[in-house]
Amino acid sequence: MSSEKYEPLTIETLANRLVTVGDICKIVGDDKSKWKIDEVGDGNLNLVYTVSSDSGNIIVKQALPYVRLVGDSWPLPLSRSFYEHEVLVRQAKRDPGSVPEIIYFNKVQAIIAMEMLLPHVILRKKLIAGEYVGGLAQRLGKFCARTAFRGSDLSLQTADKKSDTAMFQGNLALMGITESLVFTEPYFAAEMNHHTDGLDPIVEILRSDIKMKTEAQKMLMKFTANTETLCHGDLHSGSVMCTDDETKVIDPEFGFYGPMGFDLGMLISNYLMAYFSQPAHRESKALAEYQTWILKVIEGTHEAFQHEFKSLWNSERTGILFPKSMFEDQGDSSEVALNEMLEHIWQDAVAISGIEMHRRVLSLAHNADFEEISDTKKRSQLEARNLMMGRELILNNDTIKDVSELTNMARKFNLENFL
Amino acid sequence: MSSEKYEPLTIETLANRLVTVGDICKIVGDDKSKWKIDEVGDGNLNLVYTVSSDSGNIIVKQALPYVRLVGDSWPLPLSRSFYEHEVLVRQAKRDPGSVPEIIYFNKVQAIIAMEMLLPHVILRKKLIAGEYVGGLAQRLGKFCARTAFRGSDLSLQTADKKSDTAMFQGNLALMGITESLVFTEPYFAAEMNHHTDGLDPIVEILRSDIKMKTEAQKMLMKFTANTETLCHGDLHSGSVMCTDDETKVIDPEFGFYGPMGFDLGMLISNYLMAYFSQPAHRESKALAEYQTWILKVIEGTHEAFQHEFKSLWNSERTGILFPKSMFEDQGDSSEVALNEMLEHIWQDAVAISGIEMHRRVLSLAHNADFEEISDTKKRSQLEARNLMMGRELILNNDTIKDVSELTNMARKFNLENFL
Repeated sequence: MSSEKYEPLTIETLANRLVTVGDICKIVGDDKSKWKIDEVGDGNLNLVYTVSSDSGNIIVKQALPYVRLVGDSWPLPLSRSFYEHEVLVRQAKRDPGSVPEIIYFNKVQAIIAMEMLLPHVILRKKLIAGEYVGGLAQRLGKFCARTAFRGSDLSLQTADKKSDTAMFQGNLALMGITESLVFTEPYFAAEMNHHTDGLDPIVEILRSDIKMKTEAQKMLMKFTANTETLCHGDLHSGSVMCTDDETKVIDPEFGFYGPMGFDLGMLISNYLMAYFSQPAHRESKALAEYQTWILKVIEGTHEAFQHEFKSLWNSERTGILFPKSMFEDQGDSSEVALNEMLEHIWQDAVAISGIEMHRRVLSLAHNADFEEISDTKKRSQLEARNLMMGRELILNNDTIKDVSELTNMARKFNLENFL
Repeated sequence: MSSEKYEPLTIETLANRLVTVGDICKIVGDDKSKWKIDEVGDGNLNLVYTVSSDSGNIIVKQALPYVRLVGDSWPLPLSRSFYEHEVLVRQAKRDPGSVPEIIYFNKVQAIIAMEMLLPHVILRKKLIAGEYVGGLAQRLGKFCARTAFRGSDLSLQTADKKSDTAMFQGNLALMGITESLVFTEPYFAAEMNHHTDGLDPIVEILRSDIKMKTEAQKMLMKFTANTETLCHGDLHSGSVMCTDDETKVIDPEFGFYGPMGFDLGMLISNYLMAYFSQPAHRESKALAEYQTWILKVIEGTHEAFQHEFKSLWNSERTGILFPKSMFEDQGDSSEVALNEMLEHIWQDAVAISGIEMHRRVLSLAHNADFEEISDTKKRSQLEARNLMMGRELILNNDTIKDVSELTNMARKFNLENFL
């Protein structure tokens, strides 16, 4: 495919445009008449096609020059496709097997062709359907730890870290979306906000909580300034695809240098939202069992994160931070430092969790976990629990000492009725 | 002057090379036979010339491709001159009158020609000589507040902030010097370290303090990752020039995006070192009076910082952080947020102060305040006070609530004998 002017793919034009790419033909064959092409994008931003033939399947993702969810009134640069590709390359290196394999990338056309994950399903759908995923906690806990550690000054050479940090500052439009939609708009009457009928009293509580709003904005300052590591940037349950026992991470176009706790926190909050939404999706024993499993996934994710981070701390600490010359080489343990680092990461993760729980119910882009609940009264009651717990997480990010304190808090809020 | 290959200026070649620059001739005239040229560089890195004639005076600063203090075995990129120029331009805009006026800049030759500050003297020399400077605290407190605030996401448009952050990641060699010489080398037996005879017991206390070393490295993580604002990066008393009542800031080649408290902390620590060194420079009443004045300068600097920062918070908060839409526009005060921000800045400043107090006595580049004390026994005793107070600042950066607690601590350590 030539690299002329950008043009969006259509079902009609895709085959002609991609049949010239050798790496694609290697998988789906070079007889384009046998390609079955479908548009399957259900996200907020991009075009996504599947291309299938007797010999194989691929996914073709193309950025649009605007936000798909809103339309061309909200332009968004195609360069996000370049950043997504750059993040995928780093994630594949830092946590092999965690992300789909890249088959082809075209910067001008903002196209990434990838391995099709089959029979994987978006994790959010599985969580709504009440399906279990073996090894989920372990896989994503490790992913968060490996990408956080190996993208930071604990591991990288500082010159590489700094040039990479500089490059990713260019993904500012995507960071801008997070800065406004996640950290700010939930806390005032922003134009694109919407929320379920009946939630007004809860919204009022949040918007009048000066201390909580201050904490949320302190976290925004960390988001925008603390370039600790290369984050996925959007690690919710819609960015994870699973079978019954395999898990892959997709869609890192929001990749940015930020707090080491960012991805972990966003992931945990999306589990919490799945947890709070469950009473609308199933009943009695199935409900209790599934909610218990979700909290176990949260605990397991955090444990896997800590375990892996500790292991990397001891085996791969080759960056400028906490050098062995200052600790081990002098006969001093660096365990105090490691524990302070884990505490710092956890504190940021807790604050981010709370904020994400707010924006997904109050800001522009909501979660299917709640959105698919047609009984609005029921929905608002469950969302209220989620919002009120989010507030606790933001307010107490510095005192919630471990993950069991967080899951116990979820059990407590799951019994409350705020409306 | 043509922009051919880089060549260091000499007293012999300078006139021929600069007489072609119109803006320079406007000040010192175009008859180069009347130029009086001297090499006056006493810093660690660069060539510095004065060019004087009947009609005027200028300073010509040129970077060398290595560290002057060490020699060509330690290469250092000429690009630091570019970054210095970029910082000077921003500082002049953000705090008009605070820095020398730029007359000419040549990127390839790494030359900046500037207004000569006359009869200004390096502040460190005045502090050693026991000279008073009117308005010092006010001037530098404001400088730190204005540059911190106006270079941050509290003020800048986020796109401008991000592209500037990206650009300054390129000043990595200079950041690298701070990362190793300031934050790390004081705490192990690094090759270029040296310290006064007799200090070994104190050095042992510092190097075996795991908690303190952990705090120092946490601060390094903030230095290298927290791109809160554009810092001067090297704001010690050798980077300040004063008359009896005027103060200017020079030499920002270490400019980088870092913690808002960085410059304030480094400045305070250099006052503290001046304070602790005083008993070797004067006696009795003059000593007591001058030490009292130095502590007043520290207090006044912090007060001026806070006052100016508060004023800018209320009048110029136009960035993405703590937007009025979330506070004032809802009838909510943002004072809680402002106070948390000031506390955050102060905490970083305190930790940086302590670290700078260590590195200036233990690492490569020492301070004249102590170095000019020929009586090594006396010197080591005074340096020991300084080192031990530095340790307190690092260990307790999160509990030292205000500047008077810090100055009271200095009075206490000034009476101790650790050796």
